[in-house]
Amino acid sequence: MRIGIDVGGTNLKAGAVTEDGEVRSVCRMPAGDISTAGEFVHALSVLARNAAEQAGIAPQQTEAVGIGIPGAVQGDRVLYTCNLPLKEVPLGTLFRRELDVPVFLGNDADCAAIGEWCFGAGRGTRDFLTVTLGTGIGAGMILGGKLHTGMGAAGEAGHMVIHGDGLSCTCGRRGCWEQYASATGLIRRTRRRMTERPESLLHEVAAKNGAVDGRTAFEAAQRGDETALGICREYVEDLALGIVNLANLLHPERIAIGGGVADAPKELLLQPLQELVERNSYARYGGKITEIVKAKRGNEAGILGAALLQQVL
Amino acid sequence: MRIGIDVGGTNLKAGAVTEDGEVRSVCRMPAGDISTAGEFVHALSVLARNAAEQAGIAPQQTEAVGIGIPGAVQGDRVLYTCNLPLKEVPLGTLFRRELDVPVFLGNDADCAAIGEWCFGAGRGTRDFLTVTLGTGIGAGMILGGKLHTGMGAAGEAGHMVIHGDGLSCTCGRRGCWEQYASATGLIRRTRRRMTERPESLLHEVAAKNGAVDGRTAFEAAQRGDETALGICREYVEDLALGIVNLANLLHPERIAIGGGVADAPKELLLQPLQELVERNSYARYGGKITEIVKAKRGNEAGILGAALLQQVL
Repeated sequence: MRIGIDVGGTNLKAGAVTEDGEVRSVCRMPAGDISTAGEFVHALSVLARNAAEQAGIAPQQTEAVGIGIPGAVQGDRVLYTCNLPLKEVPLGTLFRRELDVPVFLGNDADCAAIGEWCFGAGRGTRDFLTVTLGTGIGAGMILGGKLHTGMGAAGEAGHMVIHGDGLSCTCGRRGCWEQYASATGLIRRTRRRMTERPESLLHEVAAKNGAVDGRTAFEAAQRGDETALGICREYVEDLALGIVNLANLLHPERIAIGGGVADAPKELLLQPLQELVERNSYARYGGKITEIVKAKRGNEAGILGAALLQQVL
Repeated sequence: MRIGIDVGGTNLKAGAVTEDGEVRSVCRMPAGDISTAGEFVHALSVLARNAAEQAGIAPQQTEAVGIGIPGAVQGDRVLYTCNLPLKEVPLGTLFRRELDVPVFLGNDADCAAIGEWCFGAGRGTRDFLTVTLGTGIGAGMILGGKLHTGMGAAGEAGHMVIHGDGLSCTCGRRGCWEQYASATGLIRRTRRRMTERPESLLHEVAAKNGAVDGRTAFEAAQRGDETALGICREYVEDLALGIVNLANLLHPERIAIGGGVADAPKELLLQPLQELVERNSYARYGGKITEIVKAKRGNEAGILGAALLQQVL
C-alpha cells in the first residue's frame, strides 16, 4: 500500500491507498500552526504513519509516500509554494529522515488529475484535464497519456486572461479566468448582485446558511430567483470561455470539473456548460467535441493522485 | 530522401529534404484552380515527383512523402479543411495510386512545429510551441517530446478568447486572440488608425508599398511615427496576452514566433514581447520563464516538418 498526502492551505491530509485506487484511511490536521520546514516535515511524517497504521500496515512497510504540494516542485525539491515555509526545501530528503520510504513530490492540481485519470472521471482517456474551481482555478493535464508539467509550473489555467483589461488578479495581470470562474469569483459576483437587489431570495438563502458561499446563487436559482438565475448564467458563460479555450488549444477527450462548485445542480452548471462547449468549440467544424464531466473522486483525488505519483513520474 | 508537401490556401509547395534537415529543392503551384479531390491528389503527386527529380532522385525511390494540410487529419484521412475539396477524403490511399511510396498526413501548423523543433528554433527542447502569425494564428505543440494533437484538432490557439465580448471571430465566438494578434488583426488595427490620423506617416508608407500590410505599422514606427508606435505597442500587448496564457498553461521551454509579422524589427516586436512575458508569466514566482524566439526556418518549416512526419507520428 502507498500513502498519498494532500497538502492544502488549510488542512494536511494523508491516506493509505490500495492498488485498486481505494482510499483505506484518511488522517488530517490543520496546517495553520506550522511555521518552519522542520515542523512541516514532522507533521507530514506523523500523518503518514497514522494513515498507514489506521489502514493496518506498519509505516516502514509503506511502498511509497507521495506528497502533493500547492506550488512547483522539481525532483526532490519544492521550488515555491504560496503560504507554506517550503521554498527551496529538499522535502523528500528531509521526509526520509523521519520515515525512510521512497518519497515522490508533485503539484496538488497534478495529483488531482492523476487521481481522476487513474481511478475516476478520466479513466480510459489519453488526453484529459481536471479543472478545480476553488479559491482559484487549478488545472492538471494528462496529455498523450503522460502528466504534463512543462518546466515545472504548467497548469496555471486560472491565470489565463479571458477578459483583457478586466478585474485585477493576485498574479499581477488583469482579467484572469479565476477572477471570474473560481468559487471566489462566484461569491464576489453573488455579493455584488445582492447589494444591487435587496429583494432577491439570495439574502434569505445566505442568512439561512450563515454566509454567502459558492452554493448561495445555485440554491436561490433552484428556487426560481431571477437574480440568482442571472448570476448562474453569467458564471457559466465565463467558466465556458476558459473551458472552450482549453478545448480549442488541447482538444482533450474529457475535462473533469472539480471543487465544491462542481456539486451545483447539473441543470444549472454542467448541462449549460456542455452546451456552450458544443456550441463554441472549434472542433464542431468536423472534429470530436471535448466532453465535460464532473470529477468523481472529490476530495480524495488529491490523496489518490499523490499515492500514484510513483507510477506516473 | 523524403518529400515534404506544404498545402496552403494559396500555394502548394513540395520539397526534397535530407536527413540533416536540408531542403534540396522546392516546387510550387497555385492552389486556386483545383476543384476536385482527384485534381488535388494529382497535383500533389506531380509536385512530389518534380521535387524529387529536381533533387536528383527517382520519385519512386523517395523514402516517404509527408503532407501538411490546413485542417484536421486522422491517419490516412482528411477530416476537414477550410477551402480545399478534401473533406472526408482518404488522401493517403489516393496519393499512393499516383506515386506508390509511404504517405503520412499532418496538420500544417503541426508540421511547422515539427520542422522548427527538429531543425530550427526548437532544437534540444522537450516542450516547445510555434505560434504562426498569418491570416489567423496557428499553433503547433511539442509536449513531453511528442507532437500533441489531442483528438486531432488541438492547437487552435488563435481561437482562445482573450477579450470576452470583444471582436467577432469567424469561428462564431467573440474576442478570439487571432482577431487581435494575427497579421490580419494588425492590418485592421493599422487601417483604423490611419482613418483617425490622416497626418500619420502610415499613409506615406502604405502608398509607397502599394497597400497596408503587416509591415506598414512597423516601418512607420521605425521612422518615429507616434501613431505607428502606438499601434505596435498595442499589438504586442495583445500578442503577449495570448503568449503568456500559453506559457502559464503549458510552461514550455521556448515559444517560436513565425509568419511574416515575425520579421518585424526586434526592438518593436520580440524584445517588448519577451519583456511582457517576463513581467507577466506566473512562473516569475519561482519558476523558469518561457523563452520567446523567432522561428528560424521560415516558409521552409512546413515542408521540413511534413517530411519529418514519418518520424514523429
